[in-house]
Amino acid sequence: MSGPSGVGKGTVIERLLERQPEVIKSVSCTTREPRPGEADGRDYSFVTADEFARMVAAGEFLEYARVHQDLWYGTPRGAVEQALASGTDITLEIDFQGARSVREKLGRRAALVFVAPPSWDELKRRLAERSTESEDATAKRLASARREFEHIGMFEYVVVNDDLETAVDELEGILTAERCRLERADWERLQSELLEES
Amino acid sequence: MSGPSGVGKGTVIERLLERQPEVIKSVSCTTREPRPGEADGRDYSFVTADEFARMVAAGEFLEYARVHQDLWYGTPRGAVEQALASGTDITLEIDFQGARSVREKLGRRAALVFVAPPSWDELKRRLAERSTESEDATAKRLASARREFEHIGMFEYVVVNDDLETAVDELEGILTAERCRLERADWERLQSELLEES
Repeated sequence: MSGPSGVGKGTVIERLLERQPEVIKSVSCTTREPRPGEADGRDYSFVTADEFARMVAAGEFLEYARVHQDLWYGTPRGAVEQALASGTDITLEIDFQGARSVREKLGRRAALVFVAPPSWDELKRRLAERSTESEDATAKRLASARREFEHIGMFEYVVVNDDLETAVDELEGILTAERCRLERADWERLQSELLEES
Repeated sequence: MSGPSGVGKGTVIERLLERQPEVIKSVSCTTREPRPGEADGRDYSFVTADEFARMVAAGEFLEYARVHQDLWYGTPRGAVEQALASGTDITLEIDFQGARSVREKLGRRAALVFVAPPSWDELKRRLAERSTESEDATAKRLASARREFEHIGMFEYVVVNDDLETAVDELEGILTAERCRLERADWERLQSELLEES
């Protein structure tokens, strides 16, 4: 899942996980400082720049990217590979660069969902509400929101986060549909039963 | 929606329409006799072989196919085109030949769903329960069920009709997800707002 900062990706994912407890969430690593209320290992794994660089060098990331100039974010490869191997659905909250890496590495085993605001004005309003941030940081976020939109073409789905519960309904529908996709559905057993009989 | 005879496609569609009254159903034309309880114009439009041939010649079908030797089924083009033009979702109950025609004519504006039985034995049991049919007709249906399965590869989705409500949940999820697909979602407005600002 990608989408501009302030669109509420994190909240949408949290609510999805409440409704679908068997779905898990990838915990990203970041070099940024924790915000008030964020817990290490739950919201993010907060690491130093040196540790991040070591993980990059060791190939421990499925995807990683530099965001807002000097901050790094990355998705540890291990949890995603374990989830795929065990057939567990896992959500990733990543930017468009991360989405592109995930597409390259996982192909259509990943579904890319773009979370969009109901309007551009609403996005600005939500960003302005984040009182923890300076005007300068908000301007950077708006600029990167524009970049996110420019890359919307690679996504499979767009979920507009106007009403939270509606957005989560849509995400649940996407999850259900993805589980029914021909590539994932368990129909080979049926087909082989049929061939044995013929 | 396709799938072998006896799998319960019709029941699944009926239940979907009860839950989603804004979705409509394409009423197929057929040259077969009405079964007990079937109403002309609701379950099928029952037409003579001559009338069917006239409609074929006039290009009035989106797809049509001969099924079970001497019976013809077809989807009138008009209702589907109206639905597409007005943004209404429409369900088609068609066989794999029809699904192939729909794919060719509508591309990915159509989502192809294969309704599968939980097992081959269960399918045989359901067909045998249709007491209105001779053993010969049942054997023909089993043979055509095999052909349906051979063409499963062209479908986007597989829904296993074991428990009806679960199958309809899955179909609703597919409907929701299809409405969120990038090609359908209304994100151009947002993108143009953004470009105006830049």
